[in-house]
Amino acid sequence: MRKVLVIGIGAGDPEHVTVQAIAAMNAVDVFFVLDKGGSTADLTAARHAILQRFVTRGYRTVTLPDPPRDRTAADYSGAVREWRDERARVLHEAMAAEEGVGGILVWGDPALYDGTIRILESFGDVDYEVVPGVSSVQVLTARHRVPLNRVAGAVHITTGRRLAAGWPAGCDDVVVMLDADLSCRAYRDEAIDIYWGAYLGTPDELLVAGRLGEVLDEIERVRADARACKGWIMDTYLLRRLS
Amino acid sequence: MRKVLVIGIGAGDPEHVTVQAIAAMNAVDVFFVLDKGGSTADLTAARHAILQRFVTRGYRTVTLPDPPRDRTAADYSGAVREWRDERARVLHEAMAAEEGVGGILVWGDPALYDGTIRILESFGDVDYEVVPGVSSVQVLTARHRVPLNRVAGAVHITTGRRLAAGWPAGCDDVVVMLDADLSCRAYRDEAIDIYWGAYLGTPDELLVAGRLGEVLDEIERVRADARACKGWIMDTYLLRRLS
Ligand SMILES: C[S@@+](CC[C@H](N)C(=O)[O-])C[C@H]1O[C@@H](n2cnc3c(N)ncnc32)[C@H](O)[C@@H]1O
Ligand SMILES: C[S@@+](CC[C@H](N)C(=O)[O-])C[C@H]1O[C@@H](n2cnc3c(N)ncnc32)[C@H](O)[C@@H]1O
Repeated sequence: MRKVLVIGIGAGDPEHVTVQAIAAMNAVDVFFVLDKGGSTADLTAARHAILQRFVTRGYRTVTLPDPPRDRTAADYSGAVREWRDERARVLHEAMAAEEGVGGILVWGDPALYDGTIRILESFGDVDYEVVPGVSSVQVLTARHRVPLNRVAGAVHITTGRRLAAGWPAGCDDVVVMLDADLSCRAYRDEAIDIYWGAYLGTPDELLVAGRLGEVLDEIERVRADARACKGWIMDTYLLRRLS
Repeated sequence: MRKVLVIGIGAGDPEHVTVQAIAAMNAVDVFFVLDKGGSTADLTAARHAILQRFVTRGYRTVTLPDPPRDRTAADYSGAVREWRDERARVLHEAMAAEEGVGGILVWGDPALYDGTIRILESFGDVDYEVVPGVSSVQVLTARHRVPLNRVAGAVHITTGRRLAAGWPAGCDDVVVMLDADLSCRAYRDEAIDIYWGAYLGTPDELLVAGRLGEVLDEIERVRADARACKGWIMDTYLLRRLS
């Protein structure tokens, strides 16, 4: 590979693709797809739709199977590490076997909770460039038409797991991602506004906003229904503690 | 005004404009420009270049002067509030006098350290939509080819003024914006990596990265030279505390 382009494609809406991303996709000879199987069929379809809409020249696609993951291992983080290493090895091997410009499409922005940059960095011998993309956080605030930060205030971006461990110190505006189970529930009795969104930017988009204690039941219901119906959920929310 | 579109245009590179932003710009009849005068002539030129490149139909432009600001007032925050209210009043009046679809171009992403959404929200009687844009934070990480967060870690986005008051509690990855004078200087003796960028996405882009204590002098020099030469500076950086 002469070069690999890591291309952010936005978090759901094909219209969020940038002019730079379109040019980058059209410079790619081989796209590498790390198949995660199962529930991500929709995401794979979204990627294909973007390529179909914006790429005007021929390209190859190399789909890499997800290595088996030992979810029962006693050493959980060791098993995750092994799986990650194996995934990187498979990708490196595939890249070595190809010529021209490589491409990897990344959901949202490649800098935010995505492992692609870290993998390419670990290779050491692969030259890569990063094309920024609109992240799900930006779609969330745009759709709710709210600012992320308050005037001259700070913002904290964190995970559901971290929020479950405690509210971030010294910050009243918190974005939560990768939350399997609405960890914000623990704060339902506090004076906090929530701006919640699922499948942002897609035709299935769901939005709920209001005082946390007043809308949490609705979010739980809407979220459970959507998950049951589609088989997967992808949601993000902003919590704003009132002072 | 039937509707106002708040359109994020990216933070310097016209190629970071999204397909949605292009469609939105082409739906606008009247663009409102809040002139900030002085050093922002470059930013005004960048906005004009974007309109020229991407808009294919006729439009009107209404440029609103910046109300005078009493920088000597004893009550500083009161003076800022007055200036902000006056700015909003002038915009509201201008919108009332126009017909069709209004548009306001916003640097970077409209949700991040920008007052436009708050002003339109305060009007109460203006219907608006927000089009997300690539923020300077995303250009910073893309150009340095680094992730924003560490694996499953949190990220804090804050201002120079806040960083000067102390390192954010419980967070090792901190993005600093609106920093008039490199407040990170206070941490030069700690084990911290910095990824610094100025005029990101523009032909004048400057990038410096490394251990804070080792590259701070270089950043200070490069920054002072650039500011002296262009008359203004716009920089952002990511601090990553090593553990
Ligand atoms: C592995 S991270 C990838 C984030 C992505 N790089 C970005 O910039 O948005 C996946 C998490 O992003 C959020 N997310 C991504 N796309 C989303 C969407 N369309 N709607 C709601 N949340 C989304 C969810 O919090 C999800 O758990
Ligand atoms: C008023 S805020 C606007 C931020 C903008 N809405 C965004 O999404 O990037 C201005 C601050 O953004 C950062 N900034 C904006 N554009 C930049 C650029 N091209 N290069 C470096 N920093 C930039 C700087 O920290 C600057 O002080």
